[in-house]
Amino acid sequence: MKTKSGNMLIAQSGGPTAVINQSLVGAILEAKKHAEIKKIYGALHGIQGILDENLIDLKQESSETLDLVAQTPSSALGSVRRKPTPADCTAIFAVLKKYDIRYFFYIGGNDSAETTYIINEEAKKAHYELSCFHICKTIDNDLRQNDHTPGFGSAGKFVAQAFMGDNLDNIALGGVKINIIMGRHAGFLTAAAALARQDETDGPHLVYLPERAFEMDSFIADVLSVVEKQGRCVIAVSEGICDADGTPIIVKEAESKEVDAHGNVQLSGTGALGDILAEAIKTRTHIARVRADTFGYLQRSFAGCVSEVDAQEAFKVGETAVKEAIAGTPDGSIAIQRIDGEKYAVEFNRVPLKSVAKETRHMPDEFINAAGNDVTQAFLDYAAPIVGPLPKIGKFARILVK
Amino acid sequence: MKTKSGNMLIAQSGGPTAVINQSLVGAILEAKKHAEIKKIYGALHGIQGILDENLIDLKQESSETLDLVAQTPSSALGSVRRKPTPADCTAIFAVLKKYDIRYFFYIGGNDSAETTYIINEEAKKAHYELSCFHICKTIDNDLRQNDHTPGFGSAGKFVAQAFMGDNLDNIALGGVKINIIMGRHAGFLTAAAALARQDETDGPHLVYLPERAFEMDSFIADVLSVVEKQGRCVIAVSEGICDADGTPIIVKEAESKEVDAHGNVQLSGTGALGDILAEAIKTRTHIARVRADTFGYLQRSFAGCVSEVDAQEAFKVGETAVKEAIAGTPDGSIAIQRIDGEKYAVEFNRVPLKSVAKETRHMPDEFINAAGNDVTQAFLDYAAPIVGPLPKIGKFARILVK
Repeated sequence: MKTKSGNMLIAQSGGPTAVINQSLVGAILEAKKHAEIKKIYGALHGIQGILDENLIDLKQESSETLDLVAQTPSSALGSVRRKPTPADCTAIFAVLKKYDIRYFFYIGGNDSAETTYIINEEAKKAHYELSCFHICKTIDNDLRQNDHTPGFGSAGKFVAQAFMGDNLDNIALGGVKINIIMGRHAGFLTAAAALARQDETDGPHLVYLPERAFEMDSFIADVLSVVEKQGRCVIAVSEGICDADGTPIIVKEAESKEVDAHGNVQLSGTGALGDILAEAIKTRTHIARVRADTFGYLQRSFAGCVSEVDAQEAFKVGETAVKEAIAGTPDGSIAIQRIDGEKYAVEFNRVPLKSVAKETRHMPDEFINAAGNDVTQAFLDYAAPIVGPLPKIGKFARILVK
Repeated sequence: MKTKSGNMLIAQSGGPTAVINQSLVGAILEAKKHAEIKKIYGALHGIQGILDENLIDLKQESSETLDLVAQTPSSALGSVRRKPTPADCTAIFAVLKKYDIRYFFYIGGNDSAETTYIINEEAKKAHYELSCFHICKTIDNDLRQNDHTPGFGSAGKFVAQAFMGDNLDNIALGGVKINIIMGRHAGFLTAAAALARQDETDGPHLVYLPERAFEMDSFIADVLSVVEKQGRCVIAVSEGICDADGTPIIVKEAESKEVDAHGNVQLSGTGALGDILAEAIKTRTHIARVRADTFGYLQRSFAGCVSEVDAQEAFKVGETAVKEAIAGTPDGSIAIQRIDGEKYAVEFNRVPLKSVAKETRHMPDEFINAAGNDVTQAFLDYAAPIVGPLPKIGKFARILVK
């Protein structure tokens, strides 16, 4: 099969990550090796940039810039949260044709995989020859087909390092500390907090995930039980925790109900959930010092906290997508899949777009304890190599003077 | 003057920092060099540990542990927020006498300097021979006599790196982003956000400090003006901002009024201020996407984000306090003072306890712009060497396709 010749268009979508630019630069550097790919265009702000013909010429960026951008958090092409309508798709094709785009790469999560799928289906219907690839990313780690996704490792490292320090802060000053972590439907990132534990007394002592129904009475009982044993309590809570009916706790208890184009409620960029839970503990127990922090956008965009494994894999996913396209594969999403064995190893496999699109992958049952308020050793074994080494912590032996 | 012989007691107080253990270990390692100092005791949780005779033997900690503890954030001896009453002081002396303590070191901020001062005065009144030293620390950077304080550099680095990433996140997704930063009465840490700027379009675009009265109408006007120019806006806000009457905005607008033993209102560990400001923008403008994050305890305790200069200076402050005591100086606080010159250099000087105690140092006028919504170049020149090098950021040249 002869590979078609034409231009390439790449864009980024959804929430940024610390390594999403690794995937972008991985794709660009691979594309520059192949004569079949003429121009390399970047659309600014995802499909919005295609619709507006807001395109930049990525072949004019220097090698030095590409290297620096790869190491820079957030989406260097800008991002968007917009789901294309059928009318959008028609408009997008007009632009693709106009610029002779034959290679299209869209970096994003499951919403973006869905967008890529829709664009690909429209291309097929229109008999327009197009290589159409989704390049996975999301700190939520919730894409099907993937062992894990680029962005999760670095966000997990941030969360773990935050908990390592916050646990020590809680040892120093006592009381109950609640930390709210991103992850709308999947608890992987919240669970990564458990990597912070260095010994059996360390927090987080409780971990609440969107995969299990959150019940306020059980929560209060759990906290009291930990405080009785440890004299303090550090808690990891997913922003997406819901009650037994599936209603997010933040919606149930607060006023904020802003939704985006994908029908998602605003959970991030507000401290409301943390404050709700802290208030519940304050009013329903005699614990004097209760504090809540919401890690917010720092989890995905903090400059200078990257998992090396995550960075390398993110680069590889972008590179592999272009290689697959050049090899003649018409479409797909590049998934990271783990190779069974003693040592951590992964491979980058092409999977169908539809198999990644839209639906969310959740924490498997074996990663969650029976009580639904902690993770298991199986999760820690799974996540540790992705997050990579963490700072060493020193504690005094504390030999008491008689 | 013959140096007295006896035991040493050291403790930590107030909010932890990323380098407060450097000061602790600096003091311990110096003390181990001097035969005059027999036992080295650590009180757990500050003066509370003295009152409870909850002391540990620090000479029994291995060199390896001491090195690791020095590099570990938060207060390894535990901390406390308790101001001693006259009755407490009497009880403290009983303990000091009982354990033949002749060298007392208290690591903390201005509240802790005040505590040290009170203990020292009581010792003098009782004719009890005691070397009594305060070892400065505070991320707020608000101690008088000091050019800057240990802890500020590392917290400033965290804040700057957070803003570097968050500014890129805001470029990618647009809208208005508010970040609430610690600093009850002094704006230094909030101001450190400005170190994140790499070019003239970068945020934070607005910086609100407790040194200037916060006025909601001006705030909204400022935000609209930035959005008109930049199409987006990133804002750094101190948790301690007050109105013209000195009432904290969080108290004015919210319900939470919890106070600690020093009469301080709870500003941290809640997302309320960020949510109040975000809500004000949402309701009073047509800006659709408004988000707020509160950096919270991560600023002082995040594991793995330390300014090297800050770490070294923190160690030196602890070491110097012990050297001064051994040299026969009866009491004092060790201040970091900058040496005038082209190149950044500091010296560690003994200053009177009273001159550091209680009162807060504020941002000098030359560090704040005329409009009261940004810092000046003078501040950036002052803070850059303390915070140290920041990660490099890559941005595309973005050459548009015609």
